[in-house]
Amino acid sequence: MMDERDLGTLFEFLKFQSVSTDPERSGDVAACAEWLAETMRESGLQAEVRPTGGHPVVLGWSERVAGRKTVLIYGHYDVQPEDPADAWSTPPFEPVIKEGRIYARGASDNKGQILSHLLGVRHALAAGDLPVNLVFLVEGEEEVGSPHLRGFVERYRDLLACDVVAISDTGMFAPGWGTLTYGLRGILAMELRVRGPRIDLHSGIFGGAVANPATVVARLVAELHDAEWRVRVPGFYGGIVPLSDAEREAWGELPDPEASLLRLTGVPLLAGEAGYGVLERMWARPTAEVNGLGGGFQGEGSKTVIPREAFAKLTFRLVPGQDPERIADLVEEFLRERVPAGVELEIVRGHAGRPYLNDPTTPESMAARRALERVFGRPPALIREGGSIPVVQDFAEVLGVPVLLLGLADPDAQAHGPDESFPVANFEAGMRLNRELLRELA
Amino acid sequence: MMDERDLGTLFEFLKFQSVSTDPERSGDVAACAEWLAETMRESGLQAEVRPTGGHPVVLGWSERVAGRKTVLIYGHYDVQPEDPADAWSTPPFEPVIKEGRIYARGASDNKGQILSHLLGVRHALAAGDLPVNLVFLVEGEEEVGSPHLRGFVERYRDLLACDVVAISDTGMFAPGWGTLTYGLRGILAMELRVRGPRIDLHSGIFGGAVANPATVVARLVAELHDAEWRVRVPGFYGGIVPLSDAEREAWGELPDPEASLLRLTGVPLLAGEAGYGVLERMWARPTAEVNGLGGGFQGEGSKTVIPREAFAKLTFRLVPGQDPERIADLVEEFLRERVPAGVELEIVRGHAGRPYLNDPTTPESMAARRALERVFGRPPALIREGGSIPVVQDFAEVLGVPVLLLGLADPDAQAHGPDESFPVANFEAGMRLNRELLRELA
Repeated sequence: MMDERDLGTLFEFLKFQSVSTDPERSGDVAACAEWLAETMRESGLQAEVRPTGGHPVVLGWSERVAGRKTVLIYGHYDVQPEDPADAWSTPPFEPVIKEGRIYARGASDNKGQILSHLLGVRHALAAGDLPVNLVFLVEGEEEVGSPHLRGFVERYRDLLACDVVAISDTGMFAPGWGTLTYGLRGILAMELRVRGPRIDLHSGIFGGAVANPATVVARLVAELHDAEWRVRVPGFYGGIVPLSDAEREAWGELPDPEASLLRLTGVPLLAGEAGYGVLERMWARPTAEVNGLGGGFQGEGSKTVIPREAFAKLTFRLVPGQDPERIADLVEEFLRERVPAGVELEIVRGHAGRPYLNDPTTPESMAARRALERVFGRPPALIREGGSIPVVQDFAEVLGVPVLLLGLADPDAQAHGPDESFPVANFEAGMRLNRELLRELA
Repeated sequence: MMDERDLGTLFEFLKFQSVSTDPERSGDVAACAEWLAETMRESGLQAEVRPTGGHPVVLGWSERVAGRKTVLIYGHYDVQPEDPADAWSTPPFEPVIKEGRIYARGASDNKGQILSHLLGVRHALAAGDLPVNLVFLVEGEEEVGSPHLRGFVERYRDLLACDVVAISDTGMFAPGWGTLTYGLRGILAMELRVRGPRIDLHSGIFGGAVANPATVVARLVAELHDAEWRVRVPGFYGGIVPLSDAEREAWGELPDPEASLLRLTGVPLLAGEAGYGVLERMWARPTAEVNGLGGGFQGEGSKTVIPREAFAKLTFRLVPGQDPERIADLVEEFLRERVPAGVELEIVRGHAGRPYLNDPTTPESMAARRALERVFGRPPALIREGGSIPVVQDFAEVLGVPVLLLGLADPDAQAHGPDESFPVANFEAGMRLNRELLRELA
């Protein structure tokens, strides 16, 4: 039911360099928001770009009809940086279709997914067949941890009142297999900056006289895990809600993901916290990851310096029972105790989001499962996911409604990496899913 | 005895971006070599630019008079990269004089020093007063470890035959205090590259499933030292010639370097291998330093990836009794044993050079000490130095002659760092030193 305009609309959306973490592209982010609001209006909705303390939120809504259920659909129009830019096969902001997939930064995360819902509504309105009151909330700061969204939802609580929230910003367990995600990990970002000498020093002349900040950063990062990838921070695992036997059993019945993970990632061997299977490690166990490491000479060849500073960008993925603030305190204390004399450690706390866990058998969940089954022709996979959508918890808490996660990104999406893509078939399925879901929820 | 042309000649020399490690600037390196040969000819020497397997060597020589001693003066016209370029107060290749110091990349290391010798010879020839046969050998690969110099010296052994080699490429113990350096550390460069996934992965989706290459690099670097900065590689300290009591006593009589080191480096506290004083740590103990560390997201803000690869650029400083090849083997074995499953480690060995130790009481050393005393008005400091000039060992071995190290870089030189500089007074003193030294050696 895709029409000839739909792909062109997506391509326009993908061309905006709406990289929310890059201060130099805030103009592109703003332009993308305006375009999206205009596209909502063209689709038959009312729409506004609303400011926040950061990048704006785009709101769209249908005429409110009394007695109808209200569905809020959330998504984001911002994207991850394209870096490393030279690893892309085609330019990240010049979408192309190859072998049935749309390649561009944001193709699956999240422009392709959120737009498929909007276009589903466009088609429904064109057919005079929208069975619910609808609100679109599309933000511009998801990739930097949605720092202003909770405040926004609290402020416009009345305007955003609804019966259920639906989000397509997660993955499918396998290509063509509709998936309901009922749990997400939380996140905590933290940057370590170690400073030593005032300037880069000659490592021959001064080597032996001063502590090397790059060595210290490496040492602090290395302290985070034991040899079997367990996080060594005392209290890190405290209070974690263990996986129920039923859930572990259900996951055990899913196809073994190892072959697929090896193919997707290209690693020679899977690795992770000792004592847990890979699905549990990805979905229900916390992690500590280095996202970026730097300091000293970065060029070709060698340069014999003791760098003046070095950094590590960390994120921790959190699971039910872990509180981001408390984990941040524990990690900070752990690291500060381990800083050797002669350098200074600055710890910059970044964004944080709580983990989320829902019940896949509520009426709303069952409605979503029926819609997924209708679109994809088989009962959906019921999974958790390792990523973080901090706002899911915010919606649940502030609006007091269930949140349905109906991901359309397939395992090959390469979200956040180079050559991110989204199958054309999933883009079309998303429009159908939107219509089936709204009917089921109605 | 500096004339009005001398500073202009130095400025011309400093403007060449002769960064030997940067393949994109090999043209600048070549142009610098041609300029230097021409400057030698203008000074009254014969000169040639001779090719090597890498950057060329510039040779200059005076008319050979039978019965005279022959002195070979070595230096290098290549420089370190200017990075981090934005940390410079003035552009690194646009020399300026501020408060009696010449600021530019290469000002002290080594263009200012080698040129002061050449201009000393220019003045001597103009005055008809050159008391020795002279050979200048100025290479273009010192900053990348002089990979072709030993072969060059072996090949032109006859042409380069001499009675003594003199080099000004080290530091003065204190400003205005002439210094004879009779020992240098060796060097061994090594780059670790850890590769995991084929592409950067979403650290939420895949976190827990794969080993993180940045974490592994950090872990390998952290393994190199214990908590008190001792190198943990078995055998690393094996065979080291201990410092003699006499030498330790002599160093104990030098002014305490702590205050000066704290001021120069800006560190809050000195640090290094437990059990040794700071001079011994810098001059007579080996080290393992990280010169560069990198992997994953380097930009502002955050990007939640598991990087596909990460690296650490290492150099080891070596002391008498340590063999670079053997140390490289020991380090490599140590690291390979510690690579966890799920990633691949590539180790790229870089340049290497042996340590050097001379006797400061030979006739040539005594001649140098008298020349230094005449120029600087006090007995010279007798020290070792932590840096590495691999060719010193090569000259000693291939030509079978003593090598005198008469450094003119003062402690504020910031060689290899931003705002490298060289006092105008030292430039002028270098010319006088050249003449006194040649007279004493004659």
